[in-house]
Amino acid sequence: MTTLSSTGLKFQTGSIKLLDQQALPHQEIWLDATEPETMIAAIKALKVRGAPLIGVAAALCLAHHACRIQNSTEIKRVAAVLRAARPTAVNLMWAVDRLLAYTEQPEQMWTEALQIFHEDVSLCQKMGQSGAEFIQDGDGILTHCNTGGLATAGIGTALGVIRTAWEQGKKLHVYVDETRPLLQGGRLTTWELEQLQIPYTLMTDNMAAMLMRQGKIQKVFLGADRIAMNGDFANKIGTYSVAVNAHYHQIPFYPVAPYSTLDPACPTGADIPIEERPTQEVQGVAGSFGKVLWAPHQAPVYNPAFDVTPVELVTRLITDRGNFSRTDLQAGKLNELCAQA
Amino acid sequence: MTTLSSTGLKFQTGSIKLLDQQALPHQEIWLDATEPETMIAAIKALKVRGAPLIGVAAALCLAHHACRIQNSTEIKRVAAVLRAARPTAVNLMWAVDRLLAYTEQPEQMWTEALQIFHEDVSLCQKMGQSGAEFIQDGDGILTHCNTGGLATAGIGTALGVIRTAWEQGKKLHVYVDETRPLLQGGRLTTWELEQLQIPYTLMTDNMAAMLMRQGKIQKVFLGADRIAMNGDFANKIGTYSVAVNAHYHQIPFYPVAPYSTLDPACPTGADIPIEERPTQEVQGVAGSFGKVLWAPHQAPVYNPAFDVTPVELVTRLITDRGNFSRTDLQAGKLNELCAQA
Repeated sequence: MTTLSSTGLKFQTGSIKLLDQQALPHQEIWLDATEPETMIAAIKALKVRGAPLIGVAAALCLAHHACRIQNSTEIKRVAAVLRAARPTAVNLMWAVDRLLAYTEQPEQMWTEALQIFHEDVSLCQKMGQSGAEFIQDGDGILTHCNTGGLATAGIGTALGVIRTAWEQGKKLHVYVDETRPLLQGGRLTTWELEQLQIPYTLMTDNMAAMLMRQGKIQKVFLGADRIAMNGDFANKIGTYSVAVNAHYHQIPFYPVAPYSTLDPACPTGADIPIEERPTQEVQGVAGSFGKVLWAPHQAPVYNPAFDVTPVELVTRLITDRGNFSRTDLQAGKLNELCAQA
Repeated sequence: MTTLSSTGLKFQTGSIKLLDQQALPHQEIWLDATEPETMIAAIKALKVRGAPLIGVAAALCLAHHACRIQNSTEIKRVAAVLRAARPTAVNLMWAVDRLLAYTEQPEQMWTEALQIFHEDVSLCQKMGQSGAEFIQDGDGILTHCNTGGLATAGIGTALGVIRTAWEQGKKLHVYVDETRPLLQGGRLTTWELEQLQIPYTLMTDNMAAMLMRQGKIQKVFLGADRIAMNGDFANKIGTYSVAVNAHYHQIPFYPVAPYSTLDPACPTGADIPIEERPTQEVQGVAGSFGKVLWAPHQAPVYNPAFDVTPVELVTRLITDRGNFSRTDLQAGKLNELCAQA
């Protein structure tokens, strides 16, 4: 019987288990999400997160369910509900749609789900290898948000690059932005680095500039949620401020993302829609660790989930299909790459 | 009988009242701090904060106590304990030392304490007038930390400038950095702006860059904790990142501080010592609003209370003794000013 294992997901003896990311870092709770209803609830509650990992988890759940029930009407119903669990997660829709080609052949659907899992592992490996060559022994590396094993089926994107360099024997130190408002750096990247025993320092987002000035940071590696054809990219809020600071301090700045993050429908970053999130996330914090509100209840808030970094601040984009210098990006190489596909 | 009133301090019918800044913004609790013991406890517990306000509060408390007990030995004992309540607050020591010249003349000590209060009000007025001329109708203004009526006996430093422009009838919108880790922006500046009914938006510190790019911010006004003779200055952590972003987006950047913030003992910013604070402040948040910890308990943390912004990122320094362009600062005008004093 198939066995799969990643940092945040396991498939063994016919059941799907998820590491509850809302309970991390204080508790490591593996939830059973074999049944579609429990998987859908876990996705909605952010117990599983990271666009690639959500797609992988949903695909495995749908295919496994399909093999058990062998009923295409029910499969399509479940697929539709899974697909809608998080409306902004493009990977989720992409993964479910890929399986829907096989509603009459559940075994083929399972093969496809396994393929999605293994492809994601492989993409991470390629990004890791491709990016690690830009890390030197002794580097201090700044990262933002969580881009590791908890966000993918593999070793991650930016954090996968850092891990690969570390496993190549390069000494390095990771500076972790806590990543307000949702604290993915403070809660999840710290937890992953503890697991990997890679030395790190946690700090608030507004401290990175000072460390750059002090010469403690030699490189920036972080993820990308959507990449426009001109090389502009959207990523977790705070990325743009890091990019400006890296530019000012002449520190190389590397976004890392799989090919699937490229969006041919977006010529430039101005075409990327930016989601705004609830005010409470900025007025305080909430999670399995507790909930507090420190701002006035009526305080008007700005809370964009992402920002856009323009290509002129990118040193090099690392993907599973090669890496691209700023000059490459500005010369339209991403258009060429998408045209080839 | 003397009556004094500021945003965070009142003296009436012979008693000193402090607005508990740990309970803000959710509760407005006025504490009696007439007795030196209660004042010392309030300073230590950060119930009263803001370097100028601490100095004023301690001076009033000491002088009032002196008038009641008329015992120079006891006055000196209380002065020593008050002076040590917060070892880094230079204004506290300066204010107490100013009163100690009059231990044999308690009435004179009281006159001096009143003088300190009124001087602080006057300094704020001068900075407000001096700085407001750089604000245009319609400006979006970014500020960091709390620099208002809660930090001084008067209208504040940077927030006093903003308030003065507002009261001159200029329409403006204030963007408030929450100011991790201690959230003085999210808790206190928001509260002050609500009181003043000045329109504002609260955001996390890492969002300011995006707003600058969007053209929503025309000016930056913030405080300074210590200013070196070459124009470099220390201020709340996160100030330097704001300065770099303002520079990149060609947005004028104005530190605002009283003359007493100039430190002739510091030729450059490299001479300013930077206090590091407890790890728990970054691993979570704590206050009268509650306490949560989201990072791994053993997470290594970097937590400097301040950072240093170099003079090349300063557009103009606003003080109660005039304002100084970057060129003035680089030409050594602060040395001249201190030499005159």
